[in-house]
Amino acid sequence: MKKARNIKIPEVTIQRLSAYLRCLSRMYEEGKKVVSSSTLAKNCGVKPAQVRKDLAYFGKFGIRGVGYYIEDLYTDIKKILGIDRVWNMALFGVGNLGTALLFYKDFLKQNYRVIAAFDVDPEKLKAGTIGGIPLFHPDRLMEVIRKERIDIAIISTPVSQAQDVVDRIVQANIRGILNFAPIRLNVPDNYIVKNVFFTNILDNLVYLLCLS
Amino acid sequence: MKKARNIKIPEVTIQRLSAYLRCLSRMYEEGKKVVSSSTLAKNCGVKPAQVRKDLAYFGKFGIRGVGYYIEDLYTDIKKILGIDRVWNMALFGVGNLGTALLFYKDFLKQNYRVIAAFDVDPEKLKAGTIGGIPLFHPDRLMEVIRKERIDIAIISTPVSQAQDVVDRIVQANIRGILNFAPIRLNVPDNYIVKNVFFTNILDNLVYLLCLS
Repeated sequence: MKKARNIKIPEVTIQRLSAYLRCLSRMYEEGKKVVSSSTLAKNCGVKPAQVRKDLAYFGKFGIRGVGYYIEDLYTDIKKILGIDRVWNMALFGVGNLGTALLFYKDFLKQNYRVIAAFDVDPEKLKAGTIGGIPLFHPDRLMEVIRKERIDIAIISTPVSQAQDVVDRIVQANIRGILNFAPIRLNVPDNYIVKNVFFTNILDNLVYLLCLS
Repeated sequence: MKKARNIKIPEVTIQRLSAYLRCLSRMYEEGKKVVSSSTLAKNCGVKPAQVRKDLAYFGKFGIRGVGYYIEDLYTDIKKILGIDRVWNMALFGVGNLGTALLFYKDFLKQNYRVIAAFDVDPEKLKAGTIGGIPLFHPDRLMEVIRKERIDIAIISTPVSQAQDVVDRIVQANIRGILNFAPIRLNVPDNYIVKNVFFTNILDNLVYLLCLS
């Protein structure tokens, strides 16, 4: 497996690698050892040539006439994506959505761990924790990151608070941001923001519905 | 504005149209009348040529040297996307995430309306409603759709129940599905499923973080 850090890999390829990973994980749990590119492709809703092309960016995988060894490919894709280690996350805004994300089982299963939550609500702060996760006022962010390494911030605050929270996150040098507040955030160039805008996804769904 | 129903429009173009729409909406609320393609582009984090190229799929917009009339372009993009009318939604699975989606303000603002919720929990069903929205057992789906037109189903059930719920949705002929359960669903060809897999989005974020 080569580290394809110098080639520009299409983002859709990276997204499909995640899908392949989840498929491989399920197959592994079912006790399977080997999978053909056509079966893997079918389970992920893509064409077999697509699977081979996506993987070819990163080296040579699988054996002609046999397929891929599930455990090996799983490990390799985890390395490619950089998720062969635990990623620590802090969550900002413990409303309905924030609470849902705090208890999102799939995160833990995939080595994504929320280690601190932040909210401004005095009632919530009184308890000190939520679902076993320590809860702080955002004013205490610097203090928290002195003790714990935080790689990723999840923003699930109301729109009105999102930029203010992001400014603190930038000060704290947390460079990865998963943003659920339906607003475009201003961050320095070397920060990575992934927006999850539910309404835009619905727009896309509606467009496809009207087309079909 | 032409209806570009016969040309294959790239999905990213459609996604950017949603982003333009949100920008235009904010500008309109701020009382602005006209916007240049460079300002619109900057606010959406894309290049001006991209804005012009995306819109060119659908006809001629804007006036050279002036820009776009905000209200007109807003109305036109809504028509293009098919969101110039109310879309009725049913939500399945009123856990933490489902509750967050039921109360998601941005949906209402954009003409997306949850008109019925479904859950199997007897405790929740006792109340009969949640946040003013009628709550039913999924067994009653056929009865509900006889009274109300439902265009879109939102799946926020646990993984173990998702396919079962989708089978009912397919029976009820609800062709648009927004799926939050981290599993790939089986539906007939003429159904449209948009998956929102939080973990895959995090994978993508982590990959970009490692690159940068």
